[in-house]
Amino acid sequence: MTGQLTVIGLGPGDPRWLTPAASEALASATDLVGYGPYVDRVSEQPGQCRHVSDNRVELDRARFALGLAANGARVAVVSGGDPGVFAMAAAVFEALETGNPAWRSLDIRVEPGITAMLAAAARVGAPLGGDFCAMSLSDNLKPWEVVEKRLRAAVEADFVVALYNPISSARPWQLGAALTIVAETRGPDTPVILARAVGRPDERIRILPLCKVEASLADMSTVVIIGASTTRRIEKSDSDTPYVYTPRFYGARA
Amino acid sequence: MTGQLTVIGLGPGDPRWLTPAASEALASATDLVGYGPYVDRVSEQPGQCRHVSDNRVELDRARFALGLAANGARVAVVSGGDPGVFAMAAAVFEALETGNPAWRSLDIRVEPGITAMLAAAARVGAPLGGDFCAMSLSDNLKPWEVVEKRLRAAVEADFVVALYNPISSARPWQLGAALTIVAETRGPDTPVILARAVGRPDERIRILPLCKVEASLADMSTVVIIGASTTRRIEKSDSDTPYVYTPRFYGARA
Repeated sequence: MTGQLTVIGLGPGDPRWLTPAASEALASATDLVGYGPYVDRVSEQPGQCRHVSDNRVELDRARFALGLAANGARVAVVSGGDPGVFAMAAAVFEALETGNPAWRSLDIRVEPGITAMLAAAARVGAPLGGDFCAMSLSDNLKPWEVVEKRLRAAVEADFVVALYNPISSARPWQLGAALTIVAETRGPDTPVILARAVGRPDERIRILPLCKVEASLADMSTVVIIGASTTRRIEKSDSDTPYVYTPRFYGARA
Repeated sequence: MTGQLTVIGLGPGDPRWLTPAASEALASATDLVGYGPYVDRVSEQPGQCRHVSDNRVELDRARFALGLAANGARVAVVSGGDPGVFAMAAAVFEALETGNPAWRSLDIRVEPGITAMLAAAARVGAPLGGDFCAMSLSDNLKPWEVVEKRLRAAVEADFVVALYNPISSARPWQLGAALTIVAETRGPDTPVILARAVGRPDERIRILPLCKVEASLADMSTVVIIGASTTRRIEKSDSDTPYVYTPRFYGARA
């Protein structure tokens, strides 16, 4: 087969975070496949077909893209952030593994991007400066007990925790439950960052102590970063918004 | 104070992974500060001063950069990968917190980059497709007991684990010890990715079952990604190198 498929990370929204490698891959594609708002971020190009699908149909979209590639197309599957972090790349490989065996001879690539937690962290300082975990709070694809177990393990081992997909209209209670678990171990003053739509015109970033965080402050475009016990605020002399960072050292300063 | 300091992520090495935002920040700097090999990656620019320092003097370098900015310079502190992930951003905020209080009125920013685990994951498929942790195996700045505790917690909760700084001549045994801990819980066939110098001419990527991984296969330019219990290989029909991915679903398929 001569077709080609690249899963491309567009980054969190600001076009200045789209890598040149991703731009090249987008420009050389014959077909773009993706969720509407991501496809809309890519400049139109004469002769390039755009196949827009709804959210939450990742596996169908992945199969469709593989089928296009099998017919000889150069397909770009567009994804927000980094495609390998709670985005389209895993769905493409799920579809590949369970699909037409001939698809395994396709040239399939992944083009990395800036994932939301990195952009959110950069906006406020360096909260991911120590060991950290990234978790999806969605229980659409895994049992809530698994989410709880992982979150408890991460908090007890004092990782910084980045939560993707914290809340949606179909999953209204999970973030509140997660914050309750975190508060069993982390102190009330632990810095928490709620970073919404980083790099987009409607960006909004809040830094709050854990005891003041409410689930209603997040939405499906928010990534939540919960500090470790060592995560610190540095007040600025001319602004109410502090820097937040996690020191590299832990325990006695080396 | 009118000085400005930006900590800039250069990505893992391929210049096509350097974001336009990072390029702009580099071009507008009066002074570049960084570890030699990173500064060497930036094109020379007339009138721009380059301040090269040795590795492992991050805090001194950060203080020097803040001092330059306090004198009115526009300083770019260059960092490999993403500066907020086991790189220079946390060191700059440590130096800020413990340094001259006047530095707190400086304009300090962080420009994100593609961190090594994202580039490594993209090369092989989507191994970070589920929940994952990123840990530094260095015990220069934290006790080894903390590393062990976190690693055990991450493995027992079935996170994918990305290990940064796995080994160096001064830290020869830590990776072997970590692999032993992982093998207490993860099966011998668990896919492990050893990704060295991703995006650079000397890139080398190996995919091995856990039972075949030896610490000597890694060096200080390697990031090690250890699969979760659900991480899978997909054999290609025309290559010995499989894809590796972690499905989004966990347990019974939703």
